Amino acid sequence: MIITVTLNSALDVTYRVPSLIPHATHRVTEAVERPGGKGVNVARVLAALGHRTTVTGFAGGPAGDELRRRLATVPDAHRITDALVPVAGLTRRTVGVVDAATGDTTMFNEPGPTVGPSEWTAFLAVYRELLADPGTEAVALCGSLPPGLPVGAYAELVREARGAGVYALLDTSGEPLRRGLAARPDLIKPNAAELTGLTGFSEPARAAHDARRRGARGVAASLGADGMLAVTEEGGWRALPPGRLAGNPTGAGDSAVAGLLSGQVEGLPWPRRLARAVALSAATVLAPAAGEYDRAGYEELLPKVEVVPAG
Amino acid sequence: MIITVTLNSALDVTYRVPSLIPHATHRVTEAVERPGGKGVNVARVLAALGHRTTVTGFAGGPAGDELRRRLATVPDAHRITDALVPVAGLTRRTVGVVDAATGDTTMFNEPGPTVGPSEWTAFLAVYRELLADPGTEAVALCGSLPPGLPVGAYAELVREARGAGVYALLDTSGEPLRRGLAARPDLIKPNAAELTGLTGFSEPARAAHDARRRGARGVAASLGADGMLAVTEEGGWRALPPGRLAGNPTGAGDSAVAGLLSGQVEGLPWPRRLARAVALSAATVLAPAAGEYDRAGYEELLPKVEVVPAG
Repeated sequence: MIITVTLNSALDVTYRVPSLIPHATHRVTEAVERPGGKGVNVARVLAALGHRTTVTGFAGGPAGDELRRRLATVPDAHRITDALVPVAGLTRRTVGVVDAATGDTTMFNEPGPTVGPSEWTAFLAVYRELLADPGTEAVALCGSLPPGLPVGAYAELVREARGAGVYALLDTSGEPLRRGLAARPDLIKPNAAELTGLTGFSEPARAAHDARRRGARGVAASLGADGMLAVTEEGGWRALPPGRLAGNPTGAGDSAVAGLLSGQVEGLPWPRRLARAVALSAATVLAPAAGEYDRAGYEELLPKVEVVPAG
Repeated sequence: MIITVTLNSALDVTYRVPSLIPHATHRVTEAVERPGGKGVNVARVLAALGHRTTVTGFAGGPAGDELRRRLATVPDAHRITDALVPVAGLTRRTVGVVDAATGDTTMFNEPGPTVGPSEWTAFLAVYRELLADPGTEAVALCGSLPPGLPVGAYAELVREARGAGVYALLDTSGEPLRRGLAARPDLIKPNAAELTGLTGFSEPARAAHDARRRGARGVAASLGADGMLAVTEEGGWRALPPGRLAGNPTGAGDSAVAGLLSGQVEGLPWPRRLARAVALSAATVLAPAAGEYDRAGYEELLPKVEVVPAG
């Protein structure tokens, strides 16, 4: 079983408008709501790949209720266990406005609920119980911290996972990532900007080595259209997608996390893990709905991903 | 008592962002939800003016629940009775994104629930009961029709009101307005664009006379910064606000409707009704929150509104 942690979960709303015109009034032609937040996206892809996952983090208010209701009815919901912890504040909505004329998306992200000390304690109790389950193999710690949580929250969660012998992947940014590294996560999955923000180096291989020096046992950096670069204890590899893809990149990084984690618990060698992550990422860009992946596209892309030693 | 009808009610959400940039990701610095839809706005202003009002129309889904919860706790909520009729579809949200740098608002309006024939029948039963209440003096029929309702819906509601001897004000646009006129509403309150759309004339006085010829007993046209023009059986007047006002015009027309209707049931002469409508409208532009009005500003503006015979 794989745990995904989404401390700042969200109800993702997508609005389609004929054309986005600043300061005008738009008729929304289509409104779609889906359970969101990075860890929730990871869980959905893991479930689609056949893995049992448990979703935890916080949920509260009307958007939190709706998120949980929808999480129970997604495809492969029978492989997803809802262990979200109630919070008095309001789970955020994110609103993505898709301009039908250009295909571009404009995002508006609400800040999320303020989490109090007793709520954080309640979450830690649930988290420790999940880590103690003998079936738990890995945990994905994903996304931003909601207001009120200590900036070292992820460091604490990594430490707990490692203490329980559970593989910990950390996918966050800024100060929570910097602090998290001190607890020595098994893997981090920054994008190019996050990796540069962390290390000061813009060359990915150099930055990845520096991130390892700062505490990450492994680094798998997602480089957009340039695929992924992994620098690990077992070696370094670069995986390249077959050509440029047009579509919506929302959730592509979360699909990569699901690819990496599923490969880890299946014991795949690194080149195959990386190929899976890149193919899932690309298939997410191809899917019409943000944060879902095109299953036929994935099967077709997987054998075409090129993996070469690097780093 | 005054009835306000909002067939397409809404939960109005206002997002504040530092600056709106198309196709970028925005952190929402402030998110505010309020009960909305034109008739709901009218009811809130009527309640603030001391009038008992009953809100009806449709509400459904999470946004409908939230609208009702919030309607029960607005200022002067003790003067507002909730007689909204449940609907299986989802009450819409409207999202207004305020650009903090310029003060401009970009609106995204969801379409609203599809109303079925049995729901329309249930609404008509509630509406007839409210009209039959001996305390009912007037009704405001406000806003767009949700999907599924007959385009002649407002004509039917005007006919019922007139049959019950209740003063009917119609504030809508397009084909529902055109059809509604055939039932001879006591007053319509179009803005300049709606009046031109209805009659084909761009000169307000000429268009107002033409609207009366088409069935409206009285016309009170809101002309933005140029105030209001009334053409009625008792004569014609023009009311001018004291100078240009900067602010958010959302809800200004609804405040004008509340001013006109409260003046009607209080038996105010037309020039005083019009002055009240214009002062309330201007005080709504001055208020920081969309759809609320600045009470001190209203008291100050009221004596400064100039009303002259016209039309």
